[in-house]
Amino acid sequence: MELNEKVLSSERLFQGVILGLRRDTVQLPNGKTAFREVAEHPGGVAIVALTEEGDVMLVRQYRYPFGRKMLEIPAGKREVGEPPFVTAQRELMEEVGAEAEKWYDLGTMLPSPGCYNEVVYIYMAEGLRFSAPCPDEDEFLAIEKMPLEDLVALCLRGEVADAKTVVGALKAHAFLAAGKKPCALDADGV
Amino acid sequence: MELNEKVLSSERLFQGVILGLRRDTVQLPNGKTAFREVAEHPGGVAIVALTEEGDVMLVRQYRYPFGRKMLEIPAGKREVGEPPFVTAQRELMEEVGAEAEKWYDLGTMLPSPGCYNEVVYIYMAEGLRFSAPCPDEDEFLAIEKMPLEDLVALCLRGEVADAKTVVGALKAHAFLAAGKKPCALDADGV
Repeated sequence: MELNEKVLSSERLFQGVILGLRRDTVQLPNGKTAFREVAEHPGGVAIVALTEEGDVMLVRQYRYPFGRKMLEIPAGKREVGEPPFVTAQRELMEEVGAEAEKWYDLGTMLPSPGCYNEVVYIYMAEGLRFSAPCPDEDEFLAIEKMPLEDLVALCLRGEVADAKTVVGALKAHAFLAAGKKPCALDADGV
Repeated sequence: MELNEKVLSSERLFQGVILGLRRDTVQLPNGKTAFREVAEHPGGVAIVALTEEGDVMLVRQYRYPFGRKMLEIPAGKREVGEPPFVTAQRELMEEVGAEAEKWYDLGTMLPSPGCYNEVVYIYMAEGLRFSAPCPDEDEFLAIEKMPLEDLVALCLRGEVADAKTVVGALKAHAFLAAGKKPCALDADGV
């Protein structure tokens, strides 16, 4: 069955500091035309950073669209042209003040591929060395940590619902519980 | 540490068929003001539907923002005012032509809580009875199925990256591998 859609035209509706929005006209497989509304996001990274004791580093921060604080793994948006591995090292330092000796690839996650183009690169990090965190001037967060097993339990009970945190925690746990590691990255993140 | 933000004003920028967009002005914990761009989505559901043989039902469909076909669990948007459990029953029938005898709650997922207000309710369903699928007129998808373990492996290898599919598959697998079931729902979805 033919499933592909063909873009006929594209209309930019908004470009903000973080989000963009466009409405494209496409030709469907049955020949009819339809609108496709696409929210655009620069993409981001998230890091499952594990201490030697098996704790995972977390940040609690206010998430404005939901009007409440949430517990999440460290994460952040990519700057224009910034390789995701560089973003991950930068965000881990900014948010929890940690450098990591060992990095592993936990794959990408597409939060909502039907109408939102964000791609999140997820990493696992070990061999942490801590110094002072340096969050952005207008970023407010509280650093916490807990055993990875406890975070997995919170995810399974639905008490942590943030997609990158659930995906990162469950994937890292699946590898470690099987006595394996995700694919290791070298100093260039390859 | 005070983390809360206080809304000062809200500006609606766009309301489309699916997505909306607004830009609010908030007061940060340090007293400064900032913009918050929020993409609005009506919310949706996703279903890990398991056959008696342990296969999970999947749909392959074209995801316009990424210009390619993706393998996902059945899912769909909520109609205005529609309870998510009703959406889940409707979408399972529309997309794969199945009714389910038993339903379980796999919790909610927030795809991108920083600037996107979508909430996805995830369910597990068993006791499937199949009839003819009835997709929307302009919805094009191919039905597939595979053992849940195979889907989990694709998620761990990063070959399936759709958030609701990864979260649903890994959560369902974590419960079943531990010999447990998620919280069962009655006929009213409670």
